[in-house]
Amino acid sequence: MPAGELRYPSPLNSSATETPPDEEEVWAQIKTEARRDAESEPALASYLYSTILSHPSLERSLAFHLGNKLCSSTLLSTLLYDLFLNTISSDSALLAATVADLRAARARDPACVSFSHCLLNYKGFLACQAHRVSHKLWSQSRRPLALALHSRISDVFAVDIHPAAKIGKGILFDHATGVVIGETAVIGNNVSILHHVTLGGTGKACEDRHPKIGDGVLIGAGATILGNVKIGEGAKIGAGSVVLIDVPPRTTAVGNPARLVGGKEKPARHEECPGESMDHTSFISDWSDYII
Amino acid sequence: MPAGELRYPSPLNSSATETPPDEEEVWAQIKTEARRDAESEPALASYLYSTILSHPSLERSLAFHLGNKLCSSTLLSTLLYDLFLNTISSDSALLAATVADLRAARARDPACVSFSHCLLNYKGFLACQAHRVSHKLWSQSRRPLALALHSRISDVFAVDIHPAAKIGKGILFDHATGVVIGETAVIGNNVSILHHVTLGGTGKACEDRHPKIGDGVLIGAGATILGNVKIGEGAKIGAGSVVLIDVPPRTTAVGNPARLVGGKEKPARHEECPGESMDHTSFISDWSDYII
Amino acid sequence: MPAGELRYPSPLNSSATETPPDEEEVWAQIKTEARRDAESEPALASYLYSTILSHPSLERSLAFHLGNKLCSSTLLSTLLYDLFLNTISSDSALLAATVADLRAARARDPACVSFSHCLLNYKGFLACQAHRVSHKLWSQSRRPLALALHSRISDVFAVDIHPAAKIGKGILFDHATGVVIGETAVIGNNVSILHHVTLGGTGKACEDRHPKIGDGVLIGAGATILGNVKIGEGAKIGAGSVVLIDVPPRTTAVGNPARLVGGKEKPARHEECPGESMDHTSFISDWSDYII
Amino acid sequence: MPAGELRYPSPLNSSATETPPDEEEVWAQIKTEARRDAESEPALASYLYSTILSHPSLERSLAFHLGNKLCSSTLLSTLLYDLFLNTISSDSALLAATVADLRAARARDPACVSFSHCLLNYKGFLACQAHRVSHKLWSQSRRPLALALHSRISDVFAVDIHPAAKIGKGILFDHATGVVIGETAVIGNNVSILHHVTLGGTGKACEDRHPKIGDGVLIGAGATILGNVKIGEGAKIGAGSVVLIDVPPRTTAVGNPARLVGGKEKPARHEECPGESMDHTSFISDWSDYII
Amino acid sequence: MPAGELRYPSPLNSSATETPPDEEEVWAQIKTEARRDAESEPALASYLYSTILSHPSLERSLAFHLGNKLCSSTLLSTLLYDLFLNTISSDSALLAATVADLRAARARDPACVSFSHCLLNYKGFLACQAHRVSHKLWSQSRRPLALALHSRISDVFAVDIHPAAKIGKGILFDHATGVVIGETAVIGNNVSILHHVTLGGTGKACEDRHPKIGDGVLIGAGATILGNVKIGEGAKIGAGSVVLIDVPPRTTAVGNPARLVGGKEKPARHEECPGESMDHTSFISDWSDYII
Amino acid sequence: MPAGELRYPSPLNSSATETPPDEEEVWAQIKTEARRDAESEPALASYLYSTILSHPSLERSLAFHLGNKLCSSTLLSTLLYDLFLNTISSDSALLAATVADLRAARARDPACVSFSHCLLNYKGFLACQAHRVSHKLWSQSRRPLALALHSRISDVFAVDIHPAAKIGKGILFDHATGVVIGETAVIGNNVSILHHVTLGGTGKACEDRHPKIGDGVLIGAGATILGNVKIGEGAKIGAGSVVLIDVPPRTTAVGNPARLVGGKEKPARHEECPGESMDHTSFISDWSDYII
Repeated sequence: MPAGELRYPSPLNSSATETPPDEEEVWAQIKTEARRDAESEPALASYLYSTILSHPSLERSLAFHLGNKLCSSTLLSTLLYDLFLNTISSDSALLAATVADLRAARARDPACVSFSHCLLNYKGFLACQAHRVSHKLWSQSRRPLALALHSRISDVFAVDIHPAAKIGKGILFDHATGVVIGETAVIGNNVSILHHVTLGGTGKACEDRHPKIGDGVLIGAGATILGNVKIGEGAKIGAGSVVLIDVPPRTTAVGNPARLVGGKEKPARHEECPGESMDHTSFISDWSDYII
Repeated sequence: MPAGELRYPSPLNSSATETPPDEEEVWAQIKTEARRDAESEPALASYLYSTILSHPSLERSLAFHLGNKLCSSTLLSTLLYDLFLNTISSDSALLAATVADLRAARARDPACVSFSHCLLNYKGFLACQAHRVSHKLWSQSRRPLALALHSRISDVFAVDIHPAAKIGKGILFDHATGVVIGETAVIGNNVSILHHVTLGGTGKACEDRHPKIGDGVLIGAGATILGNVKIGEGAKIGAGSVVLIDVPPRTTAVGNPARLVGGKEKPARHEECPGESMDHTSFISDWSDYII
Repeated sequence: MPAGELRYPSPLNSSATETPPDEEEVWAQIKTEARRDAESEPALASYLYSTILSHPSLERSLAFHLGNKLCSSTLLSTLLYDLFLNTISSDSALLAATVADLRAARARDPACVSFSHCLLNYKGFLACQAHRVSHKLWSQSRRPLALALHSRISDVFAVDIHPAAKIGKGILFDHATGVVIGETAVIGNNVSILHHVTLGGTGKACEDRHPKIGDGVLIGAGATILGNVKIGEGAKIGAGSVVLIDVPPRTTAVGNPARLVGGKEKPARHEECPGESMDHTSFISDWSDYII
Repeated sequence: MPAGELRYPSPLNSSATETPPDEEEVWAQIKTEARRDAESEPALASYLYSTILSHPSLERSLAFHLGNKLCSSTLLSTLLYDLFLNTISSDSALLAATVADLRAARARDPACVSFSHCLLNYKGFLACQAHRVSHKLWSQSRRPLALALHSRISDVFAVDIHPAAKIGKGILFDHATGVVIGETAVIGNNVSILHHVTLGGTGKACEDRHPKIGDGVLIGAGATILGNVKIGEGAKIGAGSVVLIDVPPRTTAVGNPARLVGGKEKPARHEECPGESMDHTSFISDWSDYII
Repeated sequence: MPAGELRYPSPLNSSATETPPDEEEVWAQIKTEARRDAESEPALASYLYSTILSHPSLERSLAFHLGNKLCSSTLLSTLLYDLFLNTISSDSALLAATVADLRAARARDPACVSFSHCLLNYKGFLACQAHRVSHKLWSQSRRPLALALHSRISDVFAVDIHPAAKIGKGILFDHATGVVIGETAVIGNNVSILHHVTLGGTGKACEDRHPKIGDGVLIGAGATILGNVKIGEGAKIGAGSVVLIDVPPRTTAVGNPARLVGGKEKPARHEECPGESMDHTSFISDWSDYII
Repeated sequence: MPAGELRYPSPLNSSATETPPDEEEVWAQIKTEARRDAESEPALASYLYSTILSHPSLERSLAFHLGNKLCSSTLLSTLLYDLFLNTISSDSALLAATVADLRAARARDPACVSFSHCLLNYKGFLACQAHRVSHKLWSQSRRPLALALHSRISDVFAVDIHPAAKIGKGILFDHATGVVIGETAVIGNNVSILHHVTLGGTGKACEDRHPKIGDGVLIGAGATILGNVKIGEGAKIGAGSVVLIDVPPRTTAVGNPARLVGGKEKPARHEECPGESMDHTSFISDWSDYII
């Protein structure tokens, strides 16, 4: 239904036309927030200064924070800081994606009280930024290093994203613990993914074997999507669903195994972009006949 | 059915009438256990002395242990130790809840061999005690600090409890990895929650949007409860269930989407308190007709 | 069907007859890989030397790596290194199982690019090796130490395997985050277990209350198997399934609650060993009638 | 010459009558300085907040700073923080001496730009405060702990003061590296001691065998004073001197072996208090006849 | 004697005309040495890779090494690494001085087996490089940061050089423990200073009060030079001397108090440059008459 | 005077004939002391267990303690522990020398209250044991590793002993800060050396250029001995002396420059062994004529 697709606005771009996402603006806002919090909470001031307020730019703050979060006794913080800083500085798309992710968390998660809250505390946000660096390394054929970083992200955040996976921008990994995303997975822009979500493989050898997630998709907590299936733009996957089939754009799949709400032939279609509206439960009424 | 509710004993109080839960008694028992283990296992003695035996009280031992578990290179152990000690010391209800949780783990989990085993090793127990401190800070409007603590708990234990969530006492988070509890969730007393359980939101903005869990509820592994639904006192939620509706007291909900065992009209009701009996599988027979 | 069982080859042994699994050979291969990676990626060379190339044997490398991964401010790396090295050296079966696990990851996981990749980065592999040491300690009645190790594994890797659980060799814990395996669980050889899998108890006191997993079983992501049920040799459990009943050999159980594909009376049987083929999704067609 | 001794003012008291040494005043000044420095130097702000600005009192700041400076992998910062805080809080004389030492550094050392400079950076100051705590522990017969602390001070600051040594207040250990002070040494008030100074024993067994240093003494760099000798009030010991004999009040001893300037019979006497004036070199003219 | 001064070659320049001191050449040599050592000693390879071989330039290697040596729990390695790297990169004179110091150690100290030996292990070399950074910060009026760095250098290396002190290039601090250099001291080029040497003040307030050391001077172990005295070019100060007077060029001062060898009127003069020849003991014969 | 030399007993051997120095006996005594201290001081128990009581032998305890003391972020404790343990275990003479040093400290230093006090806290003792390991590595041509260890010892303990220096047994380095011992120095048995002592070179290239110290020598604090001079058996060097000449057996040298007490022609000779009697000040009377 091409008309539908035309009507479907790329959410980030639309907001972008209103207020251009400006890294400087977000960074200035983060510093203002951190300064306010440092003043009201002396016990946290040292942390806020070391992590945010002592840095001249968002990329340095992020590189410092990730370096300290992901370091270990055998992968030193200085090495990781250098690696993050050099990689982020080398490709402006990385920081643009970071800013889009910050805006996504702020806009979609009612529990996200500020940009600095997300930057400091959201393991999904941090894992995603670290993944972008490991993905860049992977694309530069620095695979052992990309995989070492992958391993640290999985240890520290319990978020396991293969370095080869392609992830768009404006992404919200909410709560994030237990997310697993396989090697050939692709995720579009403005997607929201809850914790314990798996974009897994079929177990067959090295070909393209993981899901492709369209723009604006919302995937509920604990959903498992397996195989090289296509989740269409603006689709919604219910919490706990096990999805083994393609899901058309702007439809909802629920259950184990997942079925399309409204039926395979004429599935119900929604107009809003669930990846942004974050409406996890609108399909409850659709399920009412299963509640015996 | 109010009569039922009257008949429903508060499990902790009932046991309390037999042997009053006494912090001193539990602390003395913990020290005895630790001393015995230090003698039998010299390799562990240093750990037992630093964590338990060198401390004059349970709150100091707990503050030390949490401070060392949750510290990072930018949030130092001394700062966290101070924060935990001062907060726990400032409100006797916190330590009382700690003791009730220790008794809950000991009574309900057959794998829990001693109080000290729980104090030292149970990430669910430790995450819950740290949450109580972050919740206290939240209620004192020290929100940036509460959220920083929240983030550390989620990183270190993979247990993600929003600081605003209200949690009763006598709680067992068994295994605990992957538990996610949202901002407006409320959990009663004597509840047992297995790992990978989500008490999630509906994604709609800031109002009351998370589950309310009554006293004595048991929630099985991987269950996902979404929205401002009410899980009645003594109810049981089967493992892997996706619950989007209210569950009446002392009934059992299972499946994805969850249905009441026995049917919506006349659900089967149980007398025992599943939050304490921890009977996860009594509904197997109820499911037998689904097993084709 | 005993004939079937006779025909069912022990996968490791069969491959063993072709190329004998030799610890020396694997260790030599690991050093070759690490040397190659150190040369191509100087940023990683320090890590590769400290973790692999400076060690004279696989057990020392593994003991060093686990000691550094699992240490904390109160359980020092030197203590853990000593403990791992002494325990692994004391029982040659431990290292043989390590090598079988390395071969399993390499053979079954298309994302596993080398033995050293697995040794360094696979939290499932590392958690399993550390579990084997804690299990050995448990069997020597050094239970407080076994439980302290158990706790560190659960904190660091988000993999929670009770020290008493018995685990065979040639095991692949893929992704591994969120795996929970209870005290009386038993896992055979050549089993593959995805992340978020629970082998849980029934909550009833101390008797034998956890699943028994046969050789060659494949358990999909997020599957929950509860109680003292028997998953027969070569069976396959679909992702997200909740299994409360025995599953016969070489059959497939899917869904919540899980049903046998093909029906309880005459379930479909497969010839291949899913624990090795890792075919997670062959049952999609079997489910097609559930997709409305 | 008792008249001389009467005329000799206790320097601290005299200044005290002008501006009473007030811990609150010094602490307020320290916070003002740290706040100013944090504003002008963001790279240092985290350090200043963690060490000074996040603390409600000087004793907590000092306990935190010493705990972090002196901790090791086997003597944790939390343990030392607790020990320092409890000991300093238990005896108000300790903090009073700290404040007198801060004032001494500020008054006597032209390189000391602020109280916070001394509190943060002067190893002699920090070693002296830590010694006071180890001395308190020694006097409480907690000798193994006092000696462990002694060892950490010697390792970290290269300042070796036996826990039993008695030290007054208003002390300046300038530069401090290499200072060694033996078990039965006694140091009065308002003494200034440069680096590499030894107050050593005679090597004979356990009796009183170390120097006694009077009020207001100045001991130059590298001076070695051995045996139970008495260095009189207001005396001055030249740099590099080796002193094996009593030195009368307000005289100067120089050389190896040390001789009294002006001769043993009628040594030259000075009026000022060298421990406060810090005039190291006034005896140059006295030595002119040795310069060939 | 100006003719003498004309004849006195600047040692570094003279050698420079033969083989120009080239940072690239020295860095290439360091990497060759480190690669050779990493191959012959696997236990050290990780250290050599992290500290030298993983870095693209000498300044990065040095910044990394100093950052890790001087960091503490409150001054993180990432912060110091950044500070060292940015400062060294901002002024090419700093790295040129580093290279001159490396050449000095290699040329003058028979125990210095390679450039990498000095870079990795010489506390005098490392303290001097860190001092140059703190001096640069001081000259930029970043005094609190300069003093914090000063304090770390004094704690870690037991080398106490005030950030304001001016130090030339081609400097060898041999052994270095206990060196103290005051605020207004100035040290020329090609100077060699042994351990325990003090360039101290007179204790009088803030004016110019510390020694001025000419080019090519050699100061023996434990020498104490006090006050704003001038040690002339190519002079030699005997071990253990206490110098309170000017020492003319190319003369030798020995003893406590120091006298000129040969007498004040016609002191013996030497032709060689003792700062480079490192002849500590040529004055033995001059002292023979003191040996009774 | 050869008769004198014949009469001069090797102090350790003589005591050895009375009570044979038994490693087991000393280790048993250390454990008894540590157990007593752990009981009386819970705050120290963790340290005592980790460092002493959890180890089955003195070499393991020592290797653990040195590994933790000398490790850094780039030289990990596990690597050093391994290195110390393997080296000490490979040559029984090393542990025998350790035990002789422990007995020496206990016998000669009145401030040494127990063997465990020395083992845990004496930086001179610890530096000496670590030196023995670095010397062993040096003698095995593992020079880069020996020098890295040398550097760590100098950083951590401010004791700088070149790995090539040969040191006997029954050595007491008292206080030890600032000791510097050059490459070709040789130290006999039963020597006592105070802090700030230098056994330095002449600065001339690589030949034999450092002092040779005979058995039973006592070297006072701050003494500087330079060049390939011979300090005869049982000689005593006064504190602060600068020695550039041979000192005959059982004589005393004092002063800067050092002279023999009693005169060069017929120096006073003592019968006792000053390295054991530790009589630092018996020469005071000899100096009385210098005290003007």
